[in-house]
Amino acid sequence: MPLYTHDQLFQQFNKALDAVYYPANPAELYEPINYALSVGGKRLRPVFMLLACQAFGGDVERTMAAAIALETFHNYTLLHDDLMDNADVRRGKPTVHKRWDANVAILSGDAMLELAYGRMYQALSQADGIAETARQSAFRLFLETTLQVSEGQQYDMNFEHRLDVTLNEYFEMIRLKTGVLIACALEMGALVGGATREQADKLYQYGLQIGRAFQLQDDYLDVFGDAKVFGKSIGGDIHEGKKTYLLISALSRSSAEQRLEIADRLTDHDADPQAKIDWFTQLYKSLGVPEACAQEMLSCYYEADKLLASVKMDDTGRQLIKDFADSLVHRVL
Amino acid sequence: MPLYTHDQLFQQFNKALDAVYYPANPAELYEPINYALSVGGKRLRPVFMLLACQAFGGDVERTMAAAIALETFHNYTLLHDDLMDNADVRRGKPTVHKRWDANVAILSGDAMLELAYGRMYQALSQADGIAETARQSAFRLFLETTLQVSEGQQYDMNFEHRLDVTLNEYFEMIRLKTGVLIACALEMGALVGGATREQADKLYQYGLQIGRAFQLQDDYLDVFGDAKVFGKSIGGDIHEGKKTYLLISALSRSSAEQRLEIADRLTDHDADPQAKIDWFTQLYKSLGVPEACAQEMLSCYYEADKLLASVKMDDTGRQLIKDFADSLVHRVL
Repeated sequence: MPLYTHDQLFQQFNKALDAVYYPANPAELYEPINYALSVGGKRLRPVFMLLACQAFGGDVERTMAAAIALETFHNYTLLHDDLMDNADVRRGKPTVHKRWDANVAILSGDAMLELAYGRMYQALSQADGIAETARQSAFRLFLETTLQVSEGQQYDMNFEHRLDVTLNEYFEMIRLKTGVLIACALEMGALVGGATREQADKLYQYGLQIGRAFQLQDDYLDVFGDAKVFGKSIGGDIHEGKKTYLLISALSRSSAEQRLEIADRLTDHDADPQAKIDWFTQLYKSLGVPEACAQEMLSCYYEADKLLASVKMDDTGRQLIKDFADSLVHRVL
Repeated sequence: MPLYTHDQLFQQFNKALDAVYYPANPAELYEPINYALSVGGKRLRPVFMLLACQAFGGDVERTMAAAIALETFHNYTLLHDDLMDNADVRRGKPTVHKRWDANVAILSGDAMLELAYGRMYQALSQADGIAETARQSAFRLFLETTLQVSEGQQYDMNFEHRLDVTLNEYFEMIRLKTGVLIACALEMGALVGGATREQADKLYQYGLQIGRAFQLQDDYLDVFGDAKVFGKSIGGDIHEGKKTYLLISALSRSSAEQRLEIADRLTDHDADPQAKIDWFTQLYKSLGVPEACAQEMLSCYYEADKLLASVKMDDTGRQLIKDFADSLVHRVL
């Protein structure tokens, strides 16, 4: 079995996704699904799944349908999250509820979720040469994970109205909202590829660490990143009052007086957006928050590397996973 | 194995549903789910599933978890449909988006759907004594059906903006929106109970006919029913401009001139609601529409009875299914 780089798998995945057939009717249901899935992105989860699969000797072609199901699920979460957050743009294109309307976004998102389960069950049933227990474990993990992602989104929404979110609560929220799906992608890929329960579990733990590192990086780059490189406008999280690692750390490092000012400024919706972003950026810097965030992120990467090194697996397969993770790390500080 | 009446199964089902455990957190996610499921209703789909199961010698207790999963799915569709239709009340209680808000309705509906799949897979995996092929066929049918219901809802929404909906299109819409889930309940119950493919297929066809009859009855009673018996306000479909059997038949029986007036009155949102309802009620009567609807409905029941009679099965079990269907038929005309 040839081993592919993440770039090659990314290409193969997008090609397979383009070839997916959708019913012509009702067009109002399937056009937005096709639109949402073709808007692009890093294809993080399917590429991790395929990398994990090949690392245990699995067939990438045979796992492609499961990877498409996983990406279908992920894009359903983006579609409904964008509606709930009232976000106008996703990857430079209008979101589904902006291009169509809220009802189209609700129903096509629902159908996308239904399609994801159908595709996943079908993919796992049809792929030859997978042990029945691996098939069932993989599908069960997918079912559990999808519900956890909704729990994570709910916690994220709850945090909007709170100023007393702790770092522990934050880490639990991002574990559910981001970590478990990346971990699920890796474990499913491993199981389908033929990994043992122990190997699959370790890759899951690796996925959680990597997911945490990515989220910390996202939080960091939202304020301290280069808009051109990052592809999003800077300060969006501050504008929306998101409870990021930066904000929670800043609150925990502030005096009671400072916390009152932070609360006032966070809820001041008449403030000039750029002035607000500048004020929070300065606050973070004065409290040493960017360094703390970078430190936390690096420690996650370090833990992740240790976990990956501890899995009994093909060394080239392992290196290709590591190459992909490294390619996603931006230089911070 | 004792055979239960639909009343007994209704009681057993509600008791089992009450005993379902929900995680305490995030409360914002699980409280609305619990609320939506406990609002009540006829429990049509789970009772049909349990009746079909016992008719083939299956164990009702062992099928209860699958019945709960099915009802969870059905109530998710009501939750999201009410949001999309902006309906304030469901069975005399505020809908989830009214009691909480739109985002809570979106996300708790999503989680309900995710929960339904998880529960169904778990229920089918755990129930002993079911052949592996029956298990897989049942789950596959559930996956297909859930997507079809979304297609039906989309067609229903599309019809809002159209005056040229044909009866064929209408029947296809209600097949997807209402029929396939009732048919799925019966077929799944039969498969889990130990039915052959042929028996299960026939019960599915029976479910489609019964579902069509129920929808025609709903359309009829919305205009010509007794508000106290029906439990909904009369004329809701006219108020919302729904493309019911009554309206589509009326349009097809009208002159070009009449059709223009119907279109004008349908889109006149300033009209006195009661006057609008009265006008359409008179129109339907003058065109013989109630008789046509009742005729169509009776012919569906007749077809359904023939189908049920043709299934090779225990006669008491069959009679109990028929009793349930008969109990749901209201006297019309």
